[in-house]
Amino acid sequence: MAQSQVAIIGTGLIGTSIGLNLMARKDRSYTVVGADRDRGAARTAKKFGALDREVGSIEEAVEGAGLVILAVPVMGARRILQDAARYVKPGTVITDTCSTKAEVMRWAEEFLPAEVYFVGGHPMAGKEASGPEAATVDLFKEATWAMTPSPRAHEGAVQVVQGLIESMGATPLYIDPAEHDQYAAAISHVPLLISVALFRMARDSAAWDDLSLLAGPGFRDLTRLASGDPAMARDIVSTNREAIVHWLRRFRDELDTVAKAVEVGDEPVKDLLASTQLDRDTFILNPPRRRRIEKMEAPSAQDAIGHMFVGGMYDRLKQMSSANGDGGRAPRTTDSDRELRRKLGIEEDDDRR
Amino acid sequence: MAQSQVAIIGTGLIGTSIGLNLMARKDRSYTVVGADRDRGAARTAKKFGALDREVGSIEEAVEGAGLVILAVPVMGARRILQDAARYVKPGTVITDTCSTKAEVMRWAEEFLPAEVYFVGGHPMAGKEASGPEAATVDLFKEATWAMTPSPRAHEGAVQVVQGLIESMGATPLYIDPAEHDQYAAAISHVPLLISVALFRMARDSAAWDDLSLLAGPGFRDLTRLASGDPAMARDIVSTNREAIVHWLRRFRDELDTVAKAVEVGDEPVKDLLASTQLDRDTFILNPPRRRRIEKMEAPSAQDAIGHMFVGGMYDRLKQMSSANGDGGRAPRTTDSDRELRRKLGIEEDDDRR
Repeated sequence: MAQSQVAIIGTGLIGTSIGLNLMARKDRSYTVVGADRDRGAARTAKKFGALDREVGSIEEAVEGAGLVILAVPVMGARRILQDAARYVKPGTVITDTCSTKAEVMRWAEEFLPAEVYFVGGHPMAGKEASGPEAATVDLFKEATWAMTPSPRAHEGAVQVVQGLIESMGATPLYIDPAEHDQYAAAISHVPLLISVALFRMARDSAAWDDLSLLAGPGFRDLTRLASGDPAMARDIVSTNREAIVHWLRRFRDELDTVAKAVEVGDEPVKDLLASTQLDRDTFILNPPRRRRIEKMEAPSAQDAIGHMFVGGMYDRLKQMSSANGDGGRAPRTTDSDRELRRKLGIEEDDDRR
Repeated sequence: MAQSQVAIIGTGLIGTSIGLNLMARKDRSYTVVGADRDRGAARTAKKFGALDREVGSIEEAVEGAGLVILAVPVMGARRILQDAARYVKPGTVITDTCSTKAEVMRWAEEFLPAEVYFVGGHPMAGKEASGPEAATVDLFKEATWAMTPSPRAHEGAVQVVQGLIESMGATPLYIDPAEHDQYAAAISHVPLLISVALFRMARDSAAWDDLSLLAGPGFRDLTRLASGDPAMARDIVSTNREAIVHWLRRFRDELDTVAKAVEVGDEPVKDLLASTQLDRDTFILNPPRRRRIEKMEAPSAQDAIGHMFVGGMYDRLKQMSSANGDGGRAPRTTDSDRELRRKLGIEEDDDRR
């Protein structure tokens, strides 16, 4: 039996970290190929053991692949989806790791053939440094990983991506793409811009040379996001401008409230900070539960899916897509895609009926 | 020979971490006593091995001490300086770890007897959690530690505090108190308020329950300071209001610049972020040098000072203060305090003449 192939397009911090995870499996029955516009980055990823093979084009990467992972800035995903659409075979599962989801989902709908299954994704993980050199196998451990499956994605495809995510130690969170973008603006994109503004405030000061001597871990933490990839930031703004403008305004309102407390007196500052501290400590000590997941899948089923990905679920899906029609253990599914499953030759899974 | 005594007043994160450092020395010739308004905190510090002894009053803590360390919020330092002034013996060295320095220096001048040497200090270190439970022996490793010696502090006293700082792995930075407060407003106090405003923005949203599910390390890092001690924040604002208001205004100006770029287009955002990224990477990869220190002390002398603190400098200073007059190895000094040294019975150090 020929080996299955996973393609990673974009071998920066995220793509290379995914590659390290995929390559670390002892029982793997797939090869990992990678491509990057910057071939040096792809070669570095290969050197670090994140790829079996480095290739020079989208075509080479996706032609034999059953699972394609786009780990590029948002606008890069647009180009690659257009390009890859010409080479992908029916049944291929495509996922991405882009910072915004609504536009990406629109492009997938627009460019991909109907039998190619797109499942959007966004790992809420990262670090100060970027590039393949910064990749680590545990980057996604305990991270939330937003999932936005295309309405026409086969449920088996969704399970493959969920299995991939869980096998890296992350927690999938099913979410509507528009909702994702609104929340990501508040929790990620506006913080990035705040980080930039704070660093510029200090850096643009005539006193920077002296002032920077005092900078401690607080300043470093708060400006960390300002070291992110500018192209990624540009693409985020380009595809989520309205939400970002909205949350920036909300942030300025809150800052005005804080500034007013500072001007008014000492106790108002203490009261404001005491209630904020309480709320934040609650948030840190009792992190929000992944309620949506629990609604969709019982924990035992999730375990099974993780196992399926590692143990062969992905291969079976690939076999289906190659029209070998040898069936296999199918994930739980709904009536709506029963016909599709029949077409692909997937038998009902008895113990889940 | 009776053992020397170091007193730590305030056994929270900072005080307890200092205690852990002092207690870790195998060759120590001093005992460490600690006091806290919250006796439970002091008992915890003792249980963790940060103190030899826990006492219930300022008087008990400072009466036998040659070195007193105030690790409390700023306004607490005011009360303690007033109180301690009644009990400290001539020759005692007092330092603090407060977030602002100008007011603290003023109080030390106002309340302390002339022969008690105050050397202001501020470690640029911290972490998310507070209290003695959060203390670690390596909290100050590679941290900058601002030093603001009182003009009337004996140079030997300054060296004791510098030795203490260096022995914990931190880098002392001599700085004018008013200058410190301006820079700390930019690099520490305003970031704290930004952190608070960002957390409130997200928390006050009706969508918080869903939105918080997406919160990743970026949001966590940027809101970390919002978990700080509200009383400490109140005291910071109370003693540094003007500078904070100034830098808050500067920050809002920068945020407006960023917001305008977002509204205008994609490339302006990329350009803005690219130049910020470059500047921040330079800052991180080539951290600012401690030029001031190099001006004051050659590295070899610094090593010697670290050794002196551990090896007996502190004890000698204590002996001087007890008027035993048995001399000892004196640090490099200037003409201006020659008389004082003579009075205390410190001989000129031959190899430094």
